[in-house]
Amino acid sequence: MTKVILLLLLVLVALCSTLGKPEKNIPKRGKRIPQTLSRGWGDQLIWAQTYEEALYWSRSKNKPLMVIFHLEDCPHSASMKKAFAENKEMQRILDEDFIILNLMYETTDKHLSPDGQYVPRFLFVDPSMTVRADIVGRYSNRMYAYEPADMKILLESMAMAKKLLKTEL
Amino acid sequence: MTKVILLLLLVLVALCSTLGKPEKNIPKRGKRIPQTLSRGWGDQLIWAQTYEEALYWSRSKNKPLMVIFHLEDCPHSASMKKAFAENKEMQRILDEDFIILNLMYETTDKHLSPDGQYVPRFLFVDPSMTVRADIVGRYSNRMYAYEPADMKILLESMAMAKKLLKTEL
Repeated sequence: MTKVILLLLLVLVALCSTLGKPEKNIPKRGKRIPQTLSRGWGDQLIWAQTYEEALYWSRSKNKPLMVIFHLEDCPHSASMKKAFAENKEMQRILDEDFIILNLMYETTDKHLSPDGQYVPRFLFVDPSMTVRADIVGRYSNRMYAYEPADMKILLESMAMAKKLLKTEL
Repeated sequence: MTKVILLLLLVLVALCSTLGKPEKNIPKRGKRIPQTLSRGWGDQLIWAQTYEEALYWSRSKNKPLMVIFHLEDCPHSASMKKAFAENKEMQRILDEDFIILNLMYETTDKHLSPDGQYVPRFLFVDPSMTVRADIVGRYSNRMYAYEPADMKILLESMAMAKKLLKTEL
């Protein structure tokens, strides 16, 4: 029974790929709502704009970095985003102890896709700029994927990320 | 007389450097205003978040990319930003014909800093992913700097960028 559930979860997680790039909404007329850096993952948090900026802040503040890869037209990203933004404990810990970055486009750093470029995908980077490929979720085929039901597991991953590899930088 | 004015302008342009990284405002309490991707350079425009995303859009839309390097605590960036955002012709052309990106942190691409990492700095990239180092402003020591008074020159640079290197991509 557990196996069946796990298999089902694997199928669900596998549905979103980064092949479908999000199309931009460019209306010719009408007022646009300014785009936010949070993109709905936590409007009250301070988000880095780019990977370079995030690494800079991680190093200078000596805080681990969480990188979220997602797509706006991916229903799994959307459901995870909702659960993530509504989880007060998650948001508080991120605000206090993490540098955060959400990306819809892959970086040139291959270390950020240890087992592929699927979304949603959560990677942690140590202030020593080491991608923590050892911090994984519960899916063996998509090790950095988390579902809304995995919030506790993601919090455990965050707790692991907080134990820095090198505390004296 | 022209020389004196030019020298004065050079001094002004030379005042901002990227050494002073902007400090983040992280209040422990109180509601934050969500950060925008425009950062004041044009709230009604569609901004790319990262250089990778901007390159992707430039290639797929076959539009030139404008990259603006700036800092929030740099008065020259601030005055340029104000003039830039208020210039309706500029904003309209950018909306229709350009992919745009504003960055406060340098990328790993050295081609984006042909003569240094000063701010404010405006670089154009062709859809063929060639940085157009040939498109410059009026200052010989900071070739990619533009002041609020140089809006016409920046519009000319944009017109030059619109003549793509390779039209059949």
